[in-house]
Amino acid sequence: MIYLDNSATTKPDPSVLESFQQASERFFANPSSIHHLGGEAEKLLGKARNQAAELLGVHQDEVVFTSGGTEGNNIAIKGVALEHQGRGKHIITTEIEHSSVDEAFKGLAQLGFDVTYLPVDKNGVVASEDVKKAIRDDTILISIMHVNNELGSIQPVKEIGKIAKNYPKLFFHVDHVQGIGKVPLELDGSGIDFCTISGHKIHGLKGTGLLYVKRGTTLFPLFHGGNQEHALRSGTENLAGSVSLVKALRLVKERGASGRQHMRKLQQELCGKLSGMSGVEVNTPEVAAPHIINISVPGLKPEVIIHTLGEQGIYISTKSACSSKHTDESKILAACGVGSGRASSALRISLSYDTTTEEIRIFLESLEKAIHQLKAVLER
Amino acid sequence: MIYLDNSATTKPDPSVLESFQQASERFFANPSSIHHLGGEAEKLLGKARNQAAELLGVHQDEVVFTSGGTEGNNIAIKGVALEHQGRGKHIITTEIEHSSVDEAFKGLAQLGFDVTYLPVDKNGVVASEDVKKAIRDDTILISIMHVNNELGSIQPVKEIGKIAKNYPKLFFHVDHVQGIGKVPLELDGSGIDFCTISGHKIHGLKGTGLLYVKRGTTLFPLFHGGNQEHALRSGTENLAGSVSLVKALRLVKERGASGRQHMRKLQQELCGKLSGMSGVEVNTPEVAAPHIINISVPGLKPEVIIHTLGEQGIYISTKSACSSKHTDESKILAACGVGSGRASSALRISLSYDTTTEEIRIFLESLEKAIHQLKAVLER
Repeated sequence: MIYLDNSATTKPDPSVLESFQQASERFFANPSSIHHLGGEAEKLLGKARNQAAELLGVHQDEVVFTSGGTEGNNIAIKGVALEHQGRGKHIITTEIEHSSVDEAFKGLAQLGFDVTYLPVDKNGVVASEDVKKAIRDDTILISIMHVNNELGSIQPVKEIGKIAKNYPKLFFHVDHVQGIGKVPLELDGSGIDFCTISGHKIHGLKGTGLLYVKRGTTLFPLFHGGNQEHALRSGTENLAGSVSLVKALRLVKERGASGRQHMRKLQQELCGKLSGMSGVEVNTPEVAAPHIINISVPGLKPEVIIHTLGEQGIYISTKSACSSKHTDESKILAACGVGSGRASSALRISLSYDTTTEEIRIFLESLEKAIHQLKAVLER
Repeated sequence: MIYLDNSATTKPDPSVLESFQQASERFFANPSSIHHLGGEAEKLLGKARNQAAELLGVHQDEVVFTSGGTEGNNIAIKGVALEHQGRGKHIITTEIEHSSVDEAFKGLAQLGFDVTYLPVDKNGVVASEDVKKAIRDDTILISIMHVNNELGSIQPVKEIGKIAKNYPKLFFHVDHVQGIGKVPLELDGSGIDFCTISGHKIHGLKGTGLLYVKRGTTLFPLFHGGNQEHALRSGTENLAGSVSLVKALRLVKERGASGRQHMRKLQQELCGKLSGMSGVEVNTPEVAAPHIINISVPGLKPEVIIHTLGEQGIYISTKSACSSKHTDESKILAACGVGSGRASSALRISLSYDTTTEEIRIFLESLEKAIHQLKAVLER
């Protein structure tokens, strides 16, 4: 099997799964129970929180464990909107966000919020100047992703953070789900108030995630209840899930720069060969996260290519898994201004640290052959 | 170890953990990915959903997998409130709900909703007549738990469901977290629109749960995104979690009536002995769920008893784990009209199928001894 759909999800690392298993068995008590077993579970949770905070360079009070990226994005966006609507109902995002941000904004529009969608350039990058211009007196939230999940384009969240700092009335949320481990991002002192991370994109488990919430930030919790997670996300803590997430974060840190360099090398290899391949257009810009390569094969239905490769045990995807079943046209590519033929024939190849040169070689051969055969069928 | 805090959480069944492990390893792909691996994951998810539906006697479209009880309660309550506020802003609940319902209602009150809190009688039971009387033209939601988590008292949700059926404009939500496996509840045709179940209360895993949502019911999703879970709860599916939850539900079903009888026998044994024990008052009413026995030991701080027992490896709790760290007084007991001395000295013993007669014997001996010693110290 050659798995090149790591932006949709990754294979859990065995050590992550082992952490989950051990914590589930040995620390099953409710961390809120006041007896000794509860105390031990609470201690382990505190340790996990401290480690997560250390790995991210933030304070332990700023770590909120969640059930994943969609939850993190929704907590931040709706939490700010519902809590601070008295100040204003204007919220800003871009045209290329993940569906969990995009649909959350649409949901808020239904509740009477006024949304500005910022455009992107041909490389899929928003201009920080545009963000600045969009800010109004009644703006309470800006939500912009770090790394786009289809293209790999990197948004200037560092600069936008600096701009946001000048507007103490508004909150800045960054969806870092595709960025973590791929494109470094400092949170402390960044002007970022919320930052979403998901476990299953970094060889962690599904159902795990983390939301960075800058100290002193208030929001309307999506989950009210027993005031767990600094009262920002109630519910009996998924201790084993959080321990497993910290394990995954640590692995990311360990692979760090060398892992990124490895993916970058494979990406360059891929881009070089793909841009020379007949019928293929490379959509991913030159400056991009190292793990995503987006291409179009105009004239061929992407799902046909995916199934042809799938028969050989090679797995790539069309666009975002979270929107892959609706229509062929990529909203992201359309926002970059490419034509409909190209936006409707996109394929995403996404790498992990563990992807090998040999796998890339086989994939390239198989893709070229598949395109050749499929075009021949069409021309018959 | 004698673990008698099963209402706070249960020890995961080894087979549940094994299901999680296997699904995580073998079906790691994103069920939304259109390649073969994604298809296999999607198929397994569908199978899990079908099995859950079958075990609950509902339709597969009515099963929404969640991250737990707090999430389920919040989805139902806020989802109805935000979606249907145009119809009216009156919502009804009781004075004895779990914090995840109680605080959600308080949150909605902050957003301008008008809340009626229904009282309970001395047995901790709400009158269905009171529910009927509270319904107004602008009522959109009734949320009432099935089994109270501190007392074990059973609410007449079947009768309330019949009443609710006469008001097609309102939704009826039941928090069934303490009821599942303990007190049978039919959902189909019941007048119940939402029903919350949690995995970790039935030897499943934390971070897993299920919300029954009657077909055709609309709500404002807490998680917008890729439209997973019938678009009611977006986010990459925690397939392994859902598979493990179904395993836990099946175990509950298998233990079924015999498991309940076993707990009922132990509960009667406990109630008999405890009501005869000097200084102890039994709070749990005669008609109650079989797994909870709530007592008060006026004059002794409950945490001191808990720690004394804890030193002998016996674990019981004060009140709900989700509110155990705030104050000694139980809101639930106060609502039942017991005096402050009794409401501030409550202890909860909660059983599982696996609790043995021998464990109950040892617990009773140890408790009696502990009370005797602690009282002697106070009187010195």
